[in-house]
Amino acid sequence: MTYDKAPIFESLLIHLNKAPVSFHVPGHKMENMLDARANEFFKEIRQVDMTELPGLDDLHAPNGAIKKAQELAAKCFGAEETYFLVGGSTAGNLAAVTAICDRGDILIVQRNVHKSIIHGLMLAGAKVIFLPPMIDPETGLATGVMSDHVKEALKKYPQAKALILCNPNYYGMGIELERIANEVHTHDIPLIVDEAHGAHYGFHPDIPASALRSGADLVIQSTHKMLTALTMGAMLHVQGRLIDRKLLAQRLSMLQSSSPSYPILASLDLARRDIHTNGYHLLSEGLKAVEHFTDLMDEVEGFQIIAGKWSASTAYQTKDRFKVLVKDGTGTLTGYRILEELSSLGCFAEMADPIHVLLVFSLASKKQEAEKLAAAFRQISDNFALNKKELKLCITNTYRIEAVPVLFSPISFDLSLVGFTKDHVITVPLHLAVNCRSAEMIIPYPPGIPVLYPGETISQDMMKYLQKLANMGAKFQGAQDQALAQISVLK
Amino acid sequence: MTYDKAPIFESLLIHLNKAPVSFHVPGHKMENMLDARANEFFKEIRQVDMTELPGLDDLHAPNGAIKKAQELAAKCFGAEETYFLVGGSTAGNLAAVTAICDRGDILIVQRNVHKSIIHGLMLAGAKVIFLPPMIDPETGLATGVMSDHVKEALKKYPQAKALILCNPNYYGMGIELERIANEVHTHDIPLIVDEAHGAHYGFHPDIPASALRSGADLVIQSTHKMLTALTMGAMLHVQGRLIDRKLLAQRLSMLQSSSPSYPILASLDLARRDIHTNGYHLLSEGLKAVEHFTDLMDEVEGFQIIAGKWSASTAYQTKDRFKVLVKDGTGTLTGYRILEELSSLGCFAEMADPIHVLLVFSLASKKQEAEKLAAAFRQISDNFALNKKELKLCITNTYRIEAVPVLFSPISFDLSLVGFTKDHVITVPLHLAVNCRSAEMIIPYPPGIPVLYPGETISQDMMKYLQKLANMGAKFQGAQDQALAQISVLK
Repeated sequence: MTYDKAPIFESLLIHLNKAPVSFHVPGHKMENMLDARANEFFKEIRQVDMTELPGLDDLHAPNGAIKKAQELAAKCFGAEETYFLVGGSTAGNLAAVTAICDRGDILIVQRNVHKSIIHGLMLAGAKVIFLPPMIDPETGLATGVMSDHVKEALKKYPQAKALILCNPNYYGMGIELERIANEVHTHDIPLIVDEAHGAHYGFHPDIPASALRSGADLVIQSTHKMLTALTMGAMLHVQGRLIDRKLLAQRLSMLQSSSPSYPILASLDLARRDIHTNGYHLLSEGLKAVEHFTDLMDEVEGFQIIAGKWSASTAYQTKDRFKVLVKDGTGTLTGYRILEELSSLGCFAEMADPIHVLLVFSLASKKQEAEKLAAAFRQISDNFALNKKELKLCITNTYRIEAVPVLFSPISFDLSLVGFTKDHVITVPLHLAVNCRSAEMIIPYPPGIPVLYPGETISQDMMKYLQKLANMGAKFQGAQDQALAQISVLK
Repeated sequence: MTYDKAPIFESLLIHLNKAPVSFHVPGHKMENMLDARANEFFKEIRQVDMTELPGLDDLHAPNGAIKKAQELAAKCFGAEETYFLVGGSTAGNLAAVTAICDRGDILIVQRNVHKSIIHGLMLAGAKVIFLPPMIDPETGLATGVMSDHVKEALKKYPQAKALILCNPNYYGMGIELERIANEVHTHDIPLIVDEAHGAHYGFHPDIPASALRSGADLVIQSTHKMLTALTMGAMLHVQGRLIDRKLLAQRLSMLQSSSPSYPILASLDLARRDIHTNGYHLLSEGLKAVEHFTDLMDEVEGFQIIAGKWSASTAYQTKDRFKVLVKDGTGTLTGYRILEELSSLGCFAEMADPIHVLLVFSLASKKQEAEKLAAAFRQISDNFALNKKELKLCITNTYRIEAVPVLFSPISFDLSLVGFTKDHVITVPLHLAVNCRSAEMIIPYPPGIPVLYPGETISQDMMKYLQKLANMGAKFQGAQDQALAQISVLK
């Protein structure tokens, strides 16, 4: 089997060559829709929106095209075994956590993991030792954990079942994992890495090494985020003997649709083929677009690119060049406002926080797009006369998360943490919630990092931090009051 | 807002009209792929494979296009509130079960529910009273529960938190729910119905009424199965005061991707529009194709259509005409073999069991397709000279599931039921597993009905039944030995 094969996609083509008539689901039967405009977008994808027919294999018991495609992906990404995910990294994270621990088991977990890890902890009923992230002094952003903390936690909790990290963070800031992997392995437990933002890692000298290469045992990657799969297409990779693969497969089968999407599966296959056959070239082209943009931004007054020269901060050792973080150095425009202004000029950014806007390039980015983006920044600079304003060099991020204290005492997670009945909960204005225990998980989104867990006491600092975010228009996904004027707390 | 709007799809078109440049995920950036053939199928869908941009709303905190689309769907399907699902009915079933009970709570559950309900019971840590399904004497297929059993279970377990049914079954056989809904409501607990196979119910006089219309409180429907959404597109509907909607939304947010697929969301919106604006006509056309097929089959010797005239059996009161069950009345060909022969003639059936092949028509089926299918059956009849063989009228299904005994004692579900360590489990040949407790869940697939739960004792009858299925080539999804020559049991 050579790398330029795409077994799932090819099995779909073979099926289509039979001029098949469908007496199976899905109900659309590949037929046209009522409306010409809808037809334009959905006609072709419906041809490959298939079900588990002979020759098309079965994601939950692969022994044909899907098995082959997963084997090619394992080779490509450097795993021993790879599982295709149709429910995004969310599905992989939930499955990983529920596969590595039983109820009441202790896990050591980076505090600022993606909420899907936390949801996995709830489903599993885990007891969690949180490791605080480092805070980047330039941006106030939470990055990875310190290896000393890992060492300390492992020493204090030798019964821990795994270490779970999220690396790199949403902004492309990461830590080097090799030393940590070695440390964890001396305790004979696995290192689980949510590498959702790093599916392209390891394929180019100017891009950081992958978690698998660094020794992680189980790695989850969002192939749709930084490679070319359709949204919700992701992969879970495993190596070594520390993961119970049968149990893992069971959890995946439990948490993912029994009717997985073939377009998503085929797009994973094709995304793997892209990077497998032509990865270096494609990534180089994408990086040229990034470089072109940053060069052009030298001429635009007011805006500053964070880590523009990819200098390492003390809080992170690796940086994804495809993630470009920009702020208004004059302090005139919030990140949210910059995002809004860029949108009105046809340039759509990934996310904003009070200070920064995050621009995500990829291997598919083009130089012309970089030019359009730089022109948009120039226009905004002109519109707000940023050139006439004073640059506050090395501005301190006034909204930064204060370094989270090293607690090192287990927090019990359970589904009931979000199942409080009305008798146990009261809704209060946010400013009155200080010293109360939160009854909900609070996650400013993006980037989806939970800053309050149910049952956790709300400190004065946290209340003020949340108020600031709310005032600036952040969204609080899943919060009962999405504007967070109010919050539910335990009576 | 009129019914012919499709807010999600339209919001995507509005976005595309801005000639947007993407500095956000997904990484494909809507750009062409490397390969012309792949491009052909994925180019157009990538245009609408978006992320949570301004104007495109957020599935996990809807307040724009997605909210409007869900409101229209609620009106269309007769719910008070509707949630769009991107993880199939699986996601809806998992969320429903984990939202209605806490660990140790008692639920009354139809035994032959879809495995995703069972997975939900494991995640929730529920205690389950199983109600046996009726067995259709003509086919040996398991259908719905008896209302007397519901009554009895509710009387014996007044502390039960809900009744969970799966209706209709995979073959389109169903029971009337109204009496059961009333019975359940006298106990002030909700009726949850997995109506995965009945998204089209209630839109045509020749199609059964929907579970919502019959009084169910929470209903899950696979919009992709019998309507026109893309695979994994499903909906969860709620009405009444017995469901904690906040908790339900939290569970959905927990169990579904934080990057939901816009193509799937838009396809739900468009599927709703199809049925909302033109449902009666579309379903009538589809039903004409079914009728044409059954008429033509009158001339084909050997094959029999089950419930061809939709006569009610004692084991079911409603029947979906779009599901056509065919068997070889001469006993020459198994259902699996018929499926295989049909495939070789370009007609792809939904599934087979030892006796039957199941053909799924839908509102998108055409008369010409019915003709092609009937011609294929004629060809098979000729090839195997079925006309020269004796018709065994009213053949007894020798592989039928024996009526499951009414146990009425709670079975505890937990994630650990599939997390047995190697120390607790031994793998034995299937025929030696009689009277052992199964360490795995055994689900012949299709139709995905679990016939053995982990921890459950394996009876002689069950062993023989499984052996027969295995010999005939059924797949055992998720089983450690997919051919089921061996099975894992507790030591």
